[in-house]
This record gives sequence, C-alpha cells and structure tokens, in this order.
Amino acid sequence: MGATHLLTIDDLSAADIDELMRLTDSFVEVSERRIPKVPALRGRTVAFLFYEDSTRTRLSFETAAKRLSADTMNFSVGSSSVSKGESLRDTVQTIQAMGVDGIVLRHKSAGAPKLITQWTDGSVINAGDGWHAHPTQALLDTYTLRQQRGSLTGMRIAIVGDIKHSRVARSNAAAFTKMGAKVTFVAPKTLLPSSLEPWDVTVAHSIDDVIDEVDVLYMLRMQMERQERSPVPSLREYTRQFGLTAQRFQRLNDDVLVMHPGPMNRGVEIAADVPDSVNGLVTDQVRNGVAVRMAVLFKLFSTTSDPSFSKPTIAAPAGA
Amino acid sequence: MGATHLLTIDDLSAADIDELMRLTDSFVEVSERRIPKVPALRGRTVAFLFYEDSTRTRLSFETAAKRLSADTMNFSVGSSSVSKGESLRDTVQTIQAMGVDGIVLRHKSAGAPKLITQWTDGSVINAGDGWHAHPTQALLDTYTLRQQRGSLTGMRIAIVGDIKHSRVARSNAAAFTKMGAKVTFVAPKTLLPSSLEPWDVTVAHSIDDVIDEVDVLYMLRMQMERQERSPVPSLREYTRQFGLTAQRFQRLNDDVLVMHPGPMNRGVEIAADVPDSVNGLVTDQVRNGVAVRMAVLFKLFSTTSDPSFSKPTIAAPAGA
Amino acid sequence: MGATHLLTIDDLSAADIDELMRLTDSFVEVSERRIPKVPALRGRTVAFLFYEDSTRTRLSFETAAKRLSADTMNFSVGSSSVSKGESLRDTVQTIQAMGVDGIVLRHKSAGAPKLITQWTDGSVINAGDGWHAHPTQALLDTYTLRQQRGSLTGMRIAIVGDIKHSRVARSNAAAFTKMGAKVTFVAPKTLLPSSLEPWDVTVAHSIDDVIDEVDVLYMLRMQMERQERSPVPSLREYTRQFGLTAQRFQRLNDDVLVMHPGPMNRGVEIAADVPDSVNGLVTDQVRNGVAVRMAVLFKLFSTTSDPSFSKPTIAAPAGA
Repeated sequence: MGATHLLTIDDLSAADIDELMRLTDSFVEVSERRIPKVPALRGRTVAFLFYEDSTRTRLSFETAAKRLSADTMNFSVGSSSVSKGESLRDTVQTIQAMGVDGIVLRHKSAGAPKLITQWTDGSVINAGDGWHAHPTQALLDTYTLRQQRGSLTGMRIAIVGDIKHSRVARSNAAAFTKMGAKVTFVAPKTLLPSSLEPWDVTVAHSIDDVIDEVDVLYMLRMQMERQERSPVPSLREYTRQFGLTAQRFQRLNDDVLVMHPGPMNRGVEIAADVPDSVNGLVTDQVRNGVAVRMAVLFKLFSTTSDPSFSKPTIAAPAGA
Repeated sequence: MGATHLLTIDDLSAADIDELMRLTDSFVEVSERRIPKVPALRGRTVAFLFYEDSTRTRLSFETAAKRLSADTMNFSVGSSSVSKGESLRDTVQTIQAMGVDGIVLRHKSAGAPKLITQWTDGSVINAGDGWHAHPTQALLDTYTLRQQRGSLTGMRIAIVGDIKHSRVARSNAAAFTKMGAKVTFVAPKTLLPSSLEPWDVTVAHSIDDVIDEVDVLYMLRMQMERQERSPVPSLREYTRQFGLTAQRFQRLNDDVLVMHPGPMNRGVEIAADVPDSVNGLVTDQVRNGVAVRMAVLFKLFSTTSDPSFSKPTIAAPAGA
Repeated sequence: MGATHLLTIDDLSAADIDELMRLTDSFVEVSERRIPKVPALRGRTVAFLFYEDSTRTRLSFETAAKRLSADTMNFSVGSSSVSKGESLRDTVQTIQAMGVDGIVLRHKSAGAPKLITQWTDGSVINAGDGWHAHPTQALLDTYTLRQQRGSLTGMRIAIVGDIKHSRVARSNAAAFTKMGAKVTFVAPKTLLPSSLEPWDVTVAHSIDDVIDEVDVLYMLRMQMERQERSPVPSLREYTRQFGLTAQRFQRLNDDVLVMHPGPMNRGVEIAADVPDSVNGLVTDQVRNGVAVRMAVLFKLFSTTSDPSFSKPTIAAPAGA
C-alpha cells in the first residue's frame, strides 16, 4: 500500500489490492483456528470514532482488532464531548494525545477521513464517509468474489439500486473495475449520480435489461431512513422495477452470484429467500469482512511484514 | 445438560441443575481468588444481543465471560442496524458469520431465544424473554438457597407480587419445585397468569396468609414501567396488601430468608431496611449470579469437562 | 496517600501529591514504550459509574486501566437500572457484589463519591462531582506544569472564566496553592462562588488586569449547556472581557503557558489558534491525564509499592 492511510479505493493500485487479498487469505486461515487470535498487534491501540451508527461495521473492525490482540478505544458520538459542540479537530487531537496508533472513522461528511489525517500522527481508516467511499466494504466484496471465482477479470457485475446515495456503490465500482470486472450501474435516473465520469461503468435503467447477462447481481440497500424526499414513487414500484424478486431469481442462470452489503430490506430490494440460497453470498461477505479488516489493520499497524503467524511476530512483553 | 442451549428451566432435569450447582461451587472458589480468572474459554467469543436494557444481567454475564478469559461482542439495539429495521434473523446470521461461539439473548418476545437457535451454529443462552423465562436468574436463586440451607427439599417458598408479568416468577417456580421446594404464588387475581396449570404451585391472595408459614419470601419487583394500565388501584394499596413492610418483617420468624431479583423499589414491594438485614440475600444473589453464569458459559462452551482449573484447561496458543 | 479513596485534593498533603507526581513519571515512561502496558493490576477490576456523560474522562481512565492490565466494567446510566429508578446505594451495592476492586464515579451531585464510600469495600475515585471537585484533573494539570517548569513554587496562575460552576477551578486552585503557586480567580462577579473563604486565592474582574503578570493562563470552558439562565449578557461580551483573544495572546510574555481542561469552545473563551501554539499545553494535559490516572489507580489498587515495572509486579496466574 502506498500510503499509511486507507481513505479510498482510488489510492490503491491493483497490486496493492492483490497484496491485501493474499494477506486476507492468511487471516481467513487464522479465523478458522480453534483459537482465532494472533499477537500481531499486541500493544497497539486502535480508536473507533463513529459519527454515524453502524454496529455491523464497528463490530467487524472490533473483532478484527481483538483477533490481532490490539487494544481498542470506543469514541461514539452519542455520549461524547462532540454533543457539547467540540470540533472534529479537537476530538481527533484528544484521541491522539491519549496515545492511539490509528483511528477508524465513520462520518456523515464526505472527505472527513482525509481531513483528519493532518491532525494525527497515526493511520486513518475510512469506515464510510457520506456518499463518498467505504473502501473496506469494497475490499471484502472483492475478496468474496475472488474466493468464489479465483479472479474478477472479465466478470460482469451489476450494481443495482440507489447508486446516488451509496458509498458502497462508488467504492465497489472502483475496486471491481480495477480488478478487471465490467460494472453496470442499474438504477432509475433519479438514483444515479449527476456525473458518471469518474467510473468506467455502463448504465442500465431496468434490472431486466441486465439480468440475463451478468455473473454477479450486487443489490444495494434501499436506504429509506436517509432520504428526506423519496426519489421513487413507492417502494412497491421500486421493487417491481429494480428488486430481485422471486420471479427474477427464477430466471437467473444457475451460477449467478447475489450480494448485498446489509442490512437487508428483505421483500424490498431482494426477495426474502434469495440471500439464503446457494447463489447468495451475504454470509460470506460478513465473514470475510473480519478477515479483510484484519489484513488492513495488520498492513497499517504492524511493524513486521511476516504474515505467517506461525510464531509470535513481536516479542512478548516482560511478564505480560 | 441435555442440550447445547439454555432456553428454559423446563429443559433441565434436577440432575442437570445439581451438576450446574456443583460447577458453580468451583467458580465461587475462583471468584474468591486474588486473581479471579481462569483461561478456560480463551479464544471463545460470546455475543451479547440485548433488545431490552438490562445493565445488571449484561454486566453479570460480561464479568463471568471475562473471568473465563472469553472474548465478548456487544450488540445493543439502540445503536444498531436493528433500528434500521433489520430482522432478528439477519442480525443473528450476521453475528454468527463474524465468528461467535454463542449468543446471550435478551428479548421482549417470549420464545425469541428458541427461535434463533435455528439460525446459529452456536449455543444460545436466554437472558430473559418477555414474560416467559429467565433461567440464569432461577439458577442463581436456587444456588443462593442451596448455599444457605444445603438443599431446597421441603423448603416453603412464597413468590410475592406481579406473577403475571414476571419471567422471574415463572422460571423460579419451575426451578424451586424441581429441586423439591413447595412454592406459593402470592398475588392479587389481576396479577396472576390466566392459567396456573404449568406449575405445581399453590396460590394465596394476601401476603399475610403465608407469612407465618414460609422459609423464604421472594419479593418481585413492581414493574411500574412495563404496565400500560395499572392492574392495581395504587402503589400504596399494593404495598399495604402485598409489600414486605417493616411491620410484617417484625412478624417473620428469625430464620426466614428474603430475596429480590432487583432492581428494588425500596418502600414499595419491600421496606427500605429489609434487604440489608441479616435475613436479606440480595447481595448474595448478585454475587452468585456471576459464578452461576460462569458455570453456564463453561458448560456450554468448554471442550473439557474438568472444572478443577488447577491448571490450564486448554493449551496456550502459540505466542499468545 | 492517607486514604484508600481519592475524593478531593483537600485530602492530600503536598507530600502525597509529590509522591503521585513521581509515580506519574514512571507511567509517562511506560506510556512511551513500544508496548505501553504493564501487568501491575492484572486481575483487578475497576468499575466506571458515570451519571454524567464524559467521554474524555472515561476514555482516559479506561486507557489507564488497560495499560495496567486491569479489567474494566462500564455502568453507564443511560441504559441502566438507574433509569428504572434504582437508588445510587443499590447500584453501588450491586456493582460491589459482582466483585470489583474500586469504583470511578462521575455524578452531578457534589458529595456523591464520599457518600458511596460507606456502601463499598473498594476504593472510590471521584471523576467529578457537581461543582465540587475533580481531583484527577487537578493532578494532571499540576503534573503538566511541573513537567514544564520543575516546580510550582512561586508560579503565578490565573484561572479565568466560570469559577462558580467549575469543579475544575476548585480542585485546581487547591492543588496549585498546595504546591506553592499563587492563584488568581478571574471572573465577573456573577461567575464567582458566593464565598471564596476556602481558597487562598486573589480575585480579579478582568483578564486584562492579570495578563501582564502571570506565568500561566488557565482558561475554563464556558459551559453553555449547564446553565439554565445565562449569567453573562452575551457570549460576545464574555469573550470581549474574559476571552483569551488573539489580541491578548499577542500581548502575552513569550513564556506564558496556556491551559484548558477541554472540550474547548474555540472562538469563545480561547482564540482558535492559541491552543496549538507553542504556549499551549492542551495536548500535554490530555497525554499526562492517562499517566496520572495510571498513578492513581496503581496507588489505590496495587498491593506492591514497586513502580519500577522492570518485572511483573505480581505472580502470573497459572496458565493465564
């Protein structure tokens, strides 16, 4: 990885991603051990600074940190000095002064993770910023597809749903295309970004236009809670045009893979039974999420490059 | 224990309970050590999934898990994807995919713990479901009485208060009778379950009818916050008829034991000074709660049956 | 230290404070190690009982406890039985019964920490009680000044702002004067305590009266959220008379030190750039806070008096 931060997929080369994928292989192996822990980051402290609720992402990072024997510090906003009006800068400087090696930041504003890099000596990991980026989600999805098919080269992937408000769509499109896949955004015009220039993608306005010619259907969450005014006439209408309904699922080729970043609205963007079918990868995505985040934390915070973990990667502290 | 879950007292035989009690003896001893920890569950991860607030029960389980060297994962509902409408099933499958060995569930709906056993490979522990069951509370209360008197056989126990809305009353009645005690429910008709058939109990409608003929008075919390429409005319009236007032406490035989599951409304169901008298067992109940939960966690998650802990029960991980 | 609690600076002699300062030196050294942990409090459990939100103070204590290898128990009030009306006494007795060695209490009522000492066998640490005291803040500020100048003897310190509602002002005035400094309270009459008798301080009613004759400017947070009716005409007016503005900062002697307990209202009581200037000690205060709290926890909970930590201060548990 070229940087000491993980802010966006754009900062990574295909080789960087490849290296993280191989590192993730090691941590998948660790996770399957009877005692799924390694002392790789003993004595390191990672702070979780979440300005938006996200139990899934936070727990995934926390589990990853614990499996690496790192200490964690939780700075959730609901009960913090932030609610007393403290600035992001002062919060970051305070956390830094307490002695942390890195900050995992979730923030509602695009660009916040990049902003805070100037105020901390530690590494910054973007755990989702506004509609901008969610790089660890893209890495875990890339890993999941690579695990299924060996490579993403030539793979046809449709990302379906509310592209406009989705950092997952943005980061995944960047990662998938970088690894050689062909990405199509499938959305009504009201749910597409105003400009598609940054991405090397094609666009379709109906799921039925792509359903016979894809290897992967990546269904986005219909984020009802984030939209003030609904850009779709009704949920039923949305499901009719863009949902992976039971009828459409029947039409799919047998080997089409179905993904979703969760939490799912079963019955809205995806039919109730689809995620648990043999085509569904939702559980794999969650499971791989922990291993990918272990790889990212290890890459950024470890002082050794040995991912073998057959022995302690650092000397045990006296008496600990 | 016959099952890999702990859902209700009904699933346990008297012999199962006896075994847990003896195991608890070991953990009471561990808890009195200068360093009250054993490595028995090192590398195991227990998830706490609480859909109702319960700091006491959660902290008791957490303390138990830490003393066994298990890792813990906290999934509290206030700040989780549950508030984004995620189903219980998806939440459980997500936790499972992250790699946990078991789930401790508190839920407002009776039957939720049993329901989730179909979605997880791990063990499920019921930490309270609706009005249905609270088996670890019953086990800790059984242990506390056994600790005081050696055996529950023939013991006369009155459970006093809002039986209808109390999972504690249900689980305790089941455990106490299973261990040989004679249980009386003391409540106004409006606070009794519609059918008493499941329990081998007698009923009284005034605390004064039983007060001279009991060995144990188990006072239930008057759960003001859970009732939409009050089934009692007034708190003062309730106290007058069902409270363990100072006057009634004076009348008690010297060796009558007084219990309460907490949190207490001192001055409502129990006079202010009673819990701290020599008859009061409230502190013992809380203390034993940790040891009983250690026994339950050990029983469900340990791969060894040796409770001696004189030496590590599992091999130390390489370098950890 | 004369007591097994830390309730207020008044309970400490200058020699007690000196001893804590030297102990803090050891922990500053530990904090700078590659693995900033010692096993000094392995097996000890510290409970954090916070009735007021304070992420900074709680995280600082938590980090301190973790670096000493203590276990922690978090009892935050929002999601606890306290919200079901449980009394402070019952909460403390419950925590005590679960087996903790000490309680760190933050409470809105002055005197609460002293009150609970009668209900627990463990040590009590006051993490802020009403307008009364915040002794660890005073200790970390004393340490920070000692670190800069070797000694506080003869140092002229102005504490500026809302003295009346500030436990920080009260505890710091006590600690600074005890260590030989001369303290001036700078505040409008409406923000001074009704009696100044307890402190050996002078008073000024404008920051401009003291600004040329101080070694330290200690700026208090304007606690907008705590005052129902504002005792100052307007924030702008407050800043004009009592704020450390850019203009005033220009006038300061080069070696005047500027402190603030945080969280800061940049632009109100302190100009935006001042905290990050070479004169500003805010980051040092936060950093030293962890080491000072390690010293306090060690002093209260350790059974050894050896702060060298060159080897384990307690025997490792069998197999742990």
